[in-house]
Amino acid sequence: MRIAAIEAGGTKFVCGLGSAEGGSLETARIDTRDPDKTLAEATGFFRDAAARHGAIDALGIASFGPVDLDPASPAYGHITTTPKPGWQNVDLLGRLRSALGVPAAIDTDVNAAALAEARMGAGQGARTLAYVTVGTGIGVGVALDGAIRHAGGHAEAGHLSLRRHPDHPYAGGCPYHGDCLEGLANGPAIKAAWGASLDELPADHPAWAVQADYLGQLCAVLVLTVAPDRIVLGGGVMTQTRLFPAIRERTGHWLGGYVARYAGADARAALIVPPGCAEAPGLVGAYLIGAAGISR
Amino acid sequence: MRIAAIEAGGTKFVCGLGSAEGGSLETARIDTRDPDKTLAEATGFFRDAAARHGAIDALGIASFGPVDLDPASPAYGHITTTPKPGWQNVDLLGRLRSALGVPAAIDTDVNAAALAEARMGAGQGARTLAYVTVGTGIGVGVALDGAIRHAGGHAEAGHLSLRRHPDHPYAGGCPYHGDCLEGLANGPAIKAAWGASLDELPADHPAWAVQADYLGQLCAVLVLTVAPDRIVLGGGVMTQTRLFPAIRERTGHWLGGYVARYAGADARAALIVPPGCAEAPGLVGAYLIGAAGISR
Repeated sequence: MRIAAIEAGGTKFVCGLGSAEGGSLETARIDTRDPDKTLAEATGFFRDAAARHGAIDALGIASFGPVDLDPASPAYGHITTTPKPGWQNVDLLGRLRSALGVPAAIDTDVNAAALAEARMGAGQGARTLAYVTVGTGIGVGVALDGAIRHAGGHAEAGHLSLRRHPDHPYAGGCPYHGDCLEGLANGPAIKAAWGASLDELPADHPAWAVQADYLGQLCAVLVLTVAPDRIVLGGGVMTQTRLFPAIRERTGHWLGGYVARYAGADARAALIVPPGCAEAPGLVGAYLIGAAGISR
Repeated sequence: MRIAAIEAGGTKFVCGLGSAEGGSLETARIDTRDPDKTLAEATGFFRDAAARHGAIDALGIASFGPVDLDPASPAYGHITTTPKPGWQNVDLLGRLRSALGVPAAIDTDVNAAALAEARMGAGQGARTLAYVTVGTGIGVGVALDGAIRHAGGHAEAGHLSLRRHPDHPYAGGCPYHGDCLEGLANGPAIKAAWGASLDELPADHPAWAVQADYLGQLCAVLVLTVAPDRIVLGGGVMTQTRLFPAIRERTGHWLGGYVARYAGADARAALIVPPGCAEAPGLVGAYLIGAAGISR
C-alpha cells in the first residue's frame, strides 16, 4: 500500500510517499505559507511522486491544531482556533482529499506521533503513552494501548498555565494566553527571551534550567492527570538532549515525592524518553492513520 | 446481591449494605481514626447488618489515596503515600477481605464516584467523565465510556501546582507540596486561610472568588489534558452550589477562548455540573465495584 502522508506543522509541511512499515520512498519539505500555496505545493509533490512510484491508495494527515476531530461536527477535519495567521477554520482534510481523490484521514500531529511511538517507537511496553512535541508549538498527544481515543476533544496541554520560573525574563508570546507553556517555552519564546536558541547558548546559561523547569512541570501535570507510563519528548527543541536529565529532575521536584512509582530517579529515566521511530514520529503516524483509513 | 460498600475517606468511612441499583438497606458513618479501630468498627457494622438483612456476597471499597491499583505490585490494594497519619502502607483491601471473608475489590474514591456518576448520575451522554471531590482532600477520577481504565497509575490531580491567587493569604497545607491545589483549596485550607468554612462567609467575601479560581484552573487543566466532556464536582465544599457559576467563568478565563467547544458559557454550564447519583457517588461506586467483583 502506498500512503501519502503529511505532517502539517506551523513552520513546514513534511510530505512522504510510502508506508509506516516500509518507510518513505520519497519525502519533501514544504514551507508553511498561506493555505492555498501550501496545499497546492503538497498536492503537486504527491502527484509527481505517484508518477514515479505508482498510484496513491490513501492519505493520512498529522496536523497542527486545534483540529476538529468530531465526525458529527460541521467543522470535522478543519483547523479551528490556531494562532497561525490565515489557518483559522481551514478545511484541511476536505481540501486535500478532494485534490488527491483518495480516502483520507486526519488526526493531530501529536496524536499521530503518539500512535507511531506507541506502536513502532519508544513506547514499547507502555500502556499509556504521552507524546510531547516542543518546537514552533508545544503539543501533547495520548495513546492508550496503542490507539488514539477519540471522544470529541483532544489534549491541548501546550496551553497549560504553569508556574512562572523566577529567572525567566519574558512575558510570553501566546496570542490566547500570553504566558501559557507554549507562550513561554516554544522555540520562538526561547529566542525572544534569550536572543538565541538553546543550541547557541552555553551549558551553564540560565535558559537551560528555565526550559527544563517548564517541561518538568508539564511532565508532572501529565503524571497527575493522564497517568502515563511513558512520556516521549520530541520536536526541534528536544534535539537538545541535555535537557532530558534536567527535565526528569524537575519532574521529580514538582511531584514532590507524592506519586510513589516516580519518586526514584531511575523510574523517571524510564518514564521520560526521546522518540524511537526510524523517521519523524508525526510522519510515521500519518502513514499509520492513512493506512487505517480512519474516517472519524 | 448484597454488597458491603465502603467509601473510605480521610474524615469518615461511610459503610453501606445494599446495591447500586436498589440503594442502601442500611448505612453507618464511622469516624476515621487509626486503621485498627476504624477497620474493626466497619467490620462490626457489616456483621451486624448481615445478621439483619442476610449474608454479604461481596465487598467493594472506594478509598482515599493514593492506592496501589497495580495487581502485579506487592502493595496492591494498599494505601501508599497518603498525608493521613497512620495510614501509610496500610493493606486496606487485604485486611477487610480477610475480616469479612468475601470476594473484595478496591478502587480510589474518585474513580468509584466517576464510575457511579458515569453510569447512574450526571454523566449520562458523556464519553469522558472527570469526577472531582473537594473536601478533606481534593481528588480526580476519570471514567472512559462508563468504565475506569487501569494501566498502573491513576490521576492525582488534587496535587497539581496551579497559579496562586493574588488575594489568597495562606501558604498552603499539603505536607508534600505546600501550596498545591489540595494544600490551597481543600476544606482545612479554606478554614486556615479565612478562619471559617465557606458556608460561614458572606457571599461577597474574597474566599469565594479565590476558591472558584482554583477550581476553575483545575477544570481548565482537565480540559487541556484529559479532554472530558463532563466534569462532575462533588464533595463537602461543593455543597456550596453558588461556586458553580463562578467556577465555570474562571474555567473560561483560564482556557482563554482557545478550546473552541468550551468558549461559550452554555457549553461550560453543560460541562461542569453537580453530582446526580441518588446516594453519595463514592458509595454508589463502591457498590458497583463490589458487584463487578473486580479483582485487579
